[in-house]
Parts: sequence; structure tokens; C-alpha cells
Amino acid sequence: MEFKSKIKTIEWTGSCSRMVDQTLIPYEYKMVDIKSSKEMFDAIRDMIVRGAPAIGIAGAHGVVLAAMEIAKKTQDKSVFLNELKKHAEYLKSARPTAVNLMWAVDKQYELAKNSENSISGIVDELKENGIKLENEDIEINKKIGDYGAELVKQGATILTHCNAGALATVGYGTALGVVRSAYAKDNTIQVFADETRPRLQGARITTFELVTDGIPVTLITDGMSGYFMKKGMIDMVVVGADRIAANGDTANKIGTYNLAIAAKYHNVPFYIAAPLSTIDTSINTGDEIPIEERGHEEVTHVNGKRICAEGVKVINPGFDVTPNELISGIITEKGVLYPDYKESIKQAFSS
Amino acid sequence: MEFKSKIKTIEWTGSCSRMVDQTLIPYEYKMVDIKSSKEMFDAIRDMIVRGAPAIGIAGAHGVVLAAMEIAKKTQDKSVFLNELKKHAEYLKSARPTAVNLMWAVDKQYELAKNSENSISGIVDELKENGIKLENEDIEINKKIGDYGAELVKQGATILTHCNAGALATVGYGTALGVVRSAYAKDNTIQVFADETRPRLQGARITTFELVTDGIPVTLITDGMSGYFMKKGMIDMVVVGADRIAANGDTANKIGTYNLAIAAKYHNVPFYIAAPLSTIDTSINTGDEIPIEERGHEEVTHVNGKRICAEGVKVINPGFDVTPNELISGIITEKGVLYPDYKESIKQAFSS
Repeated sequence: MEFKSKIKTIEWTGSCSRMVDQTLIPYEYKMVDIKSSKEMFDAIRDMIVRGAPAIGIAGAHGVVLAAMEIAKKTQDKSVFLNELKKHAEYLKSARPTAVNLMWAVDKQYELAKNSENSISGIVDELKENGIKLENEDIEINKKIGDYGAELVKQGATILTHCNAGALATVGYGTALGVVRSAYAKDNTIQVFADETRPRLQGARITTFELVTDGIPVTLITDGMSGYFMKKGMIDMVVVGADRIAANGDTANKIGTYNLAIAAKYHNVPFYIAAPLSTIDTSINTGDEIPIEERGHEEVTHVNGKRICAEGVKVINPGFDVTPNELISGIITEKGVLYPDYKESIKQAFSS
Repeated sequence: MEFKSKIKTIEWTGSCSRMVDQTLIPYEYKMVDIKSSKEMFDAIRDMIVRGAPAIGIAGAHGVVLAAMEIAKKTQDKSVFLNELKKHAEYLKSARPTAVNLMWAVDKQYELAKNSENSISGIVDELKENGIKLENEDIEINKKIGDYGAELVKQGATILTHCNAGALATVGYGTALGVVRSAYAKDNTIQVFADETRPRLQGARITTFELVTDGIPVTLITDGMSGYFMKKGMIDMVVVGADRIAANGDTANKIGTYNLAIAAKYHNVPFYIAAPLSTIDTSINTGDEIPIEERGHEEVTHVNGKRICAEGVKVINPGFDVTPNELISGIITEKGVLYPDYKESIKQAFSS
């Protein structure tokens, strides 16, 4: 039995990229059309679209939009490719931590560079490849979901952080893909969702997704996970990833590391669910992953209202790195990878 | 050199209890007069006044207000004492976890019961004892501060959770008493403050207190502590307590336990700062401490606006229990207690 999710996060319409405006969730479920590479840069930076796999697809669409814009201005293929390269670098700079953005934009640019086609032919190739990446993303998530579901015990409570769901991908989700596949087999499982301050993606987006799909979800604050683990109420933790180093160290939304430490202390299994495109084999350890520092008002304000005294200092890292020693397994489309991750990751890429 | 704080949280005016309305901080610093035991019950339950030592004093004032009310209605001392007992039980039921409330209310009731005075004489005795408890609270906090300051290294960064400051006590504070005493000796120390969801006492109250007193403070979300510990940016953690069992297990604001686990993982010293009145020697371990379950809208709403989907479930424990194995020391007015806590607590009470 396959679980049908009602959510599709991003898709190519034929002439532009159409996406759910995630800044409005859970208040409104509204689609917006992104019609230029500049608009796409803003949409990624401002988190209209977020979630590592979803911003990968957004980046791929951004390259298509850039190619369409440039094609109107030049007939010269080397000028076209030079300009496309600049747009690609610009798109990649929208957010530094999630490697899927770099992966998808580079994939599109390489396709253009290596094509024997005319400019308009290249534009068509990029559109087709964007759609292919979309479809692949859903297929990959379903495989992740199915491999992950095998790890979920009967009636389990799964704790997750941030949103690694349909809305972090084209559809279905990575961590929540595991939940969806597990729920299709056993509708007695349930989810606990960390609210995930400062941007509250868990409260806003994960609860929205799961309520929409009818999967039971309990919202908790980020400081409560240990309390529920100690009571024996959490059977496993499954989260997504923004970038995984060659040794398995994993960058994910800030707060993931605290959660992983709490899971270790209580012997609760802690899993990462992510496609291989999230693994950056060019870096050896998590120390090399750049951590995005985001605006301070994300911490000092909630819904536009200040929550702290004037004159306070703020540091707002968007991500943290969970060392491989805290990770029980990495659930990918090629199966669940286990320690030693350096070896198992190498094997996953070569198989 | 003594640190002068600008904040006085609660005091007996001569005819009523005057307190800072802490639900308005940091937006407004407003005093409210509490004129009956019913008003005091509401003020404690609705967290107009909060923080274990402060609600102890509020409870003591509540008994005075009750005695004043009852004295108007009866001349019969046994009727008076019976009624006072009912009011005392009622006041104690306002919040279940912090033991200081029970401690102070019981102290007042015992004083009345054992008095040889007339009713009006008893009312005067209760007023005087309330003021004595106020003054003692500040003296105790200064002793806690001075003992704690000896543990603070030159230029240290101290992480705290929730608010165990002047506004959690009559003045000066317990955890922030340690900060104030340390800062008076070394103005290169600084504080990192967990925002402390769901009620944001760290963001709202701790930043307000420290900015008001000119002590540098950086606000972080509850999920960030491990990130900064891993970077070596946190030298020690100091938090308050709502109830400490005879073996040192400590109930404090939800999120404290996750923080203690993260501190242990990084070998960052983790201290509790609390008066002996917070130690409940009648219970052996933290498992016996009742944990208050608070309203769900504290989690689902921030500043009156919903932050999650409709249809989500919520559990909202107000406190968690940190086991003694995670606690480096308990800073009291009789010095710093170290493991074995069962022994050191026994000694502190007998010395």
C-alpha cells in the first residue's frame, strides 16, 4: 500500500516555477509563481521555499529561468554560457549550508556546458532535466521512506526536528517520508514534532503537513525532548539533513545536535534521512561545513513582535553539526548506511 | 564591592503585597497591588509573580492577606485558625512544583497556630514575619551569589535557563545572584540566556534584568546550547531550581534537563543555585516531585497568535527533573554542596 500525500511543494509549470509559499504556512496554503532567476534567489534566501531537497529543485528551476532570460539577449553560445555561469554562482550563494542547492545548480550548468545543442535547444534540455530532477526527488523519497519504515517498530512514536517533509522536498519527504511509509503499514504510529525555534518550521510546517495527511502529531518545544525520552515515550528520532560530510557528520537545522545528544543519553536510536545528493564527499568532516548566520530578528521577534529587552546581543546560527558518533544510521535511497560511515558512504556512491 | 540591582520584585507595603507584573516584561515595568488571598492565588497561578523564592514570599503575603480578611469576620481564635488553614491550603494549590510556596505558607500557618497572641496580634506577627522572610531572601541570595562567584573563572561566559534572577526572588536572584556577585568582581564576564520556551522567561525576563543592570547578555534559542558548548564558548551553566529532592535530583523549568545533558556531553560544569528552602528533604528522589502540566496555548500560541496547525496534540510539562549525576554542585546560602548530595544536603541542614 502506498501513502498518498496531498502536498506538492514545487513544480515546473512549463514557463515558470510554481511553489508553495512556506512563510505563510500554517495560516495560508498559497502557490506563487517564480518567473526570473532574481526572484528565485529571493525565494530561496527568504525561505519562501526551504528544505535541502526542495531548494535543490528550486535552484535547478532557477537555472532554467536564467537560461530563458539570457537566451532573449544573446545568440552567442559562449556569451550565453558565461552569463549562465554567473547566474548559477549567484543562485548558489542564496544559502550556504544545504549542499543540494550547489549539487542541482551545478548539474544544470554542466548539462548546458556539455550540450552540443543550440541555445534554445539547451533551454529545452534544462527544462526537461528540471522536471526529471523533480520526479527523481519523489522517487528517491519513497525509497528512503520504505527503507526507513523497516526500522520503525509497531506503534512507535517518532520524534522529528524542523521539517524534513513533503514541504522540504518536491513531495513525500525524507524524515516524514519515513513516517508516511511507516504509517501506511501501521496506522498506530505517531509523531512528536519539535517546534524548532527560531523559525518554528516544526510548529508551522511539520504539524501542517501531518494534520493535512491525517497522521497523529504532538507538538513540543525544543527543550522537552529529554523529558519525554526519560519517560520512555520516544522510540526513535528521525531528522533530515542539509549537508553530510564523507565521514557521516551531519549539518541540519539548529537544535538537531542537542536532540542527538539527548537521544544518545537515553539510548534512543537517532537516524538521518536524506538522499545521496545531500552527501558532500568533497569534505572529510563536519568541521568544513559552512554554517549560515541568519538575521537576529528571527530570535528577537516572533510574528513581528519583540520578545526580549532592547540592548541584548544575539547570535543566530541556522544549523549545527551532529558528529557521526551520535548517528545510528543514515537512511538513503540506496538503503540504510551504518558506521563506519566513511566506508558505507563510499560504497553507496560506487554501487 | 557589592553589586546593586535596580530591581525589587515583591514587598509588603504595610497594607498589601506590591509586586512587579512579570507578564508585562519586557514591554512594561509595572507594579500591582494584591489585596486579598484570592487575588494572590490568581497572581501566582497566572504567573504575575513567578520564580520559586518569589512565589514563596507571595505565599507568605497571601497568608497575611487571608488573616486580615478572616479577622474582620470572627473573634473566635479556633474559627480563625480553621479558616486560615483553608486559605493556606488554597494558596499552596496555586502551583504544585515549586516547594518554596509550600515552605513559606506552612511557616506562616505554623506561626499563627503556635502563637499565644490575640487574633489582631497574630495578624501583626504574620506581617512582621512576611517582612522578615523578604529580608532573609535577599540576604540568602547574596550569600548564594558570593559562594557561586568563587566558582566563576576570569572572563567566563555563563549560560543560564529561564529566569532565576532578581525577578524570581525578592531581589538579587539565585543563578543571576551568582552572575551579579561575579560581575562585581570581574566585569569581563558575560551571560548567554536560553530564551526558554514556551513562556520565554529567558528572553523576556532574564534579558530585561541583565540589560537593566548593565551586564552583557546574549540571547539564544533553547536548541543552540550544544552548538556554543562545542565551540568552547560556554564556561559554565548556572540555573535555579523549583524543588530539590534529598538526593540532589532537581526540578527546574522545562528544558533544564536537555541543557544538563548537553553540558555533561561537553564537560561543561553545571550548577544549581538555590536556597535551602528549595530542598525538600521529605522526598528521596526527583521521581516524587509533582510536575505541573500547563495550558496548551502556551505551546500553540506566541503573543496571542497561533504558530501551528489546528488539530495538533500538545503536552506541556512546566518542569523537568535533572538527575543528580548531571549536577556539578548546588550553590546554597551555606556554601556549595557536592556529591554525594544525600550526605552534603543532610549536613547543610544540620549545620
